[in-house]
Amino acid sequence: MDEDAFLVALQALRADRVQGASELARQGLGILAESALGMAAGDVPELCRQLRARAGQLRQARPSMSPLEHLMQCWSEGLEEVASEDDLAVARRIAAERATELVERSRQAVAGVVAVAAAAIGAGKTLLTHSLSSTVVGVLRALAGQGVRVILSESRPLNEGYRLARLLSELGVPSRLITDAQIGLAVAEADLVLVGADSLFPDGSLVNKVGTYLLALAAHDQGVPFWVCCERFKHRADPLLPQQLERMDPAELGAPALPGVQIENPYFDITPSRLISAWIDELGVRRAAP
Amino acid sequence: MDEDAFLVALQALRADRVQGASELARQGLGILAESALGMAAGDVPELCRQLRARAGQLRQARPSMSPLEHLMQCWSEGLEEVASEDDLAVARRIAAERATELVERSRQAVAGVVAVAAAAIGAGKTLLTHSLSSTVVGVLRALAGQGVRVILSESRPLNEGYRLARLLSELGVPSRLITDAQIGLAVAEADLVLVGADSLFPDGSLVNKVGTYLLALAAHDQGVPFWVCCERFKHRADPLLPQQLERMDPAELGAPALPGVQIENPYFDITPSRLISAWIDELGVRRAAP
Repeated sequence: MDEDAFLVALQALRADRVQGASELARQGLGILAESALGMAAGDVPELCRQLRARAGQLRQARPSMSPLEHLMQCWSEGLEEVASEDDLAVARRIAAERATELVERSRQAVAGVVAVAAAAIGAGKTLLTHSLSSTVVGVLRALAGQGVRVILSESRPLNEGYRLARLLSELGVPSRLITDAQIGLAVAEADLVLVGADSLFPDGSLVNKVGTYLLALAAHDQGVPFWVCCERFKHRADPLLPQQLERMDPAELGAPALPGVQIENPYFDITPSRLISAWIDELGVRRAAP
Repeated sequence: MDEDAFLVALQALRADRVQGASELARQGLGILAESALGMAAGDVPELCRQLRARAGQLRQARPSMSPLEHLMQCWSEGLEEVASEDDLAVARRIAAERATELVERSRQAVAGVVAVAAAAIGAGKTLLTHSLSSTVVGVLRALAGQGVRVILSESRPLNEGYRLARLLSELGVPSRLITDAQIGLAVAEADLVLVGADSLFPDGSLVNKVGTYLLALAAHDQGVPFWVCCERFKHRADPLLPQQLERMDPAELGAPALPGVQIENPYFDITPSRLISAWIDELGVRRAAP
């Protein structure tokens, strides 16, 4: 993968509104594997230097998404081993294999979260979710034959709730689609709120699609449990975000352009841990913030 | 106004998504004035009986909107005086005049609320509002030359926030348009939340466009004052709603129709009085629930 192709792939990852944080992180690892095998480099030190630079750029592409940061960092640390190789071809192969292994670890971690969450939730429940989390989709798939019902929000501006509705329809899981503004009305009808995460802070606070905070407030106000499920690659070590939460193109709102009317499009909000009832990861269910 | 024309007007009032509760109540009075002058009736008792029946139908047309109920009731009570008339033409004229007088009282009440609210808010504030309230528009118009700034939500499904954005643009009031899901992020930037009402319950709880409850939760959570402004015709005597809060056509969401995916379109939610910091009506500002 030459520099031009890398920059195209990096830009696509920045602009992606369809895939979640874990999927994008795995996509980043795929880019690194291709880079390791195919980028121009005269010797092993040059290869490692350039791969580290690419991993750094990928890591910063989506600052609200922890898995990207974690997996890029894990992979960069593995380059120590690659750097000790003399043979450039072998070094390329090892670097690519490390990326593929991390992709597999990420997939297994998500599968672990899904298994833990599905067991903890059990049969016959009505779940309310916001946005489209591939981990939550995994849980709903696991519970599809067990009488699960889902209430889901549109999730403006791009309405990824519509895609979730389509998935549930295909799975035969009965669902109800609501506007984001109707979350406060609908939460009382749910046994449980279940959302995924883009990142979890060390204190348990959650970075997720904008609107999650409002959902958590309503669930808390009405005594409905609010659970977040994500693999440990989404846990952040740093209590501070590296930069402000991402903002996307204001044109996504589809609102009229008018003099004096500003439009912004922040994509994420932060749900404080005091509003969260349980945190689920591949190791189990945690009922209290750390 | 004959029976067919009345039914058309009644249906239009039921289907109206553009005008607010006070405007629709005044429209109902206009229908009664026309009915009084033009409907078929052989004598005064028959006229009064039929007018009472029409007032009753109008009253029930929009159960979430108190002004309609109040003004229809006020006007029906005034029919006692009409019933004591011998002359049918005089009775028609008096009944129509009573309707016109009530329209004027409603207008004056809203103007009173606007004056009280604008004085209480004062210059240089950033207000956040949800949906499109003609009373809030009046307040913003009154504060337009005084450095007011507005953050406003789209208010799905029909995005009446876009109409408010256009009005503010024409008034030269700087504004920022957000999605309903972004309310929780934006509320911290406001000095004050200001919303109108469809109804106020005796305990101060508020019936308003769906999403208002989420806004109130976020404002409360972040210590931003939440004010509601409405004329006293919106105060309900009855602590219970006459029937469930209105639901509109699910097609308004514009979501795909999918097997097993239910769509509902409730238009209103209830904000408990514990989340409200101040109630403003034409008599003044109240800082505590009754």
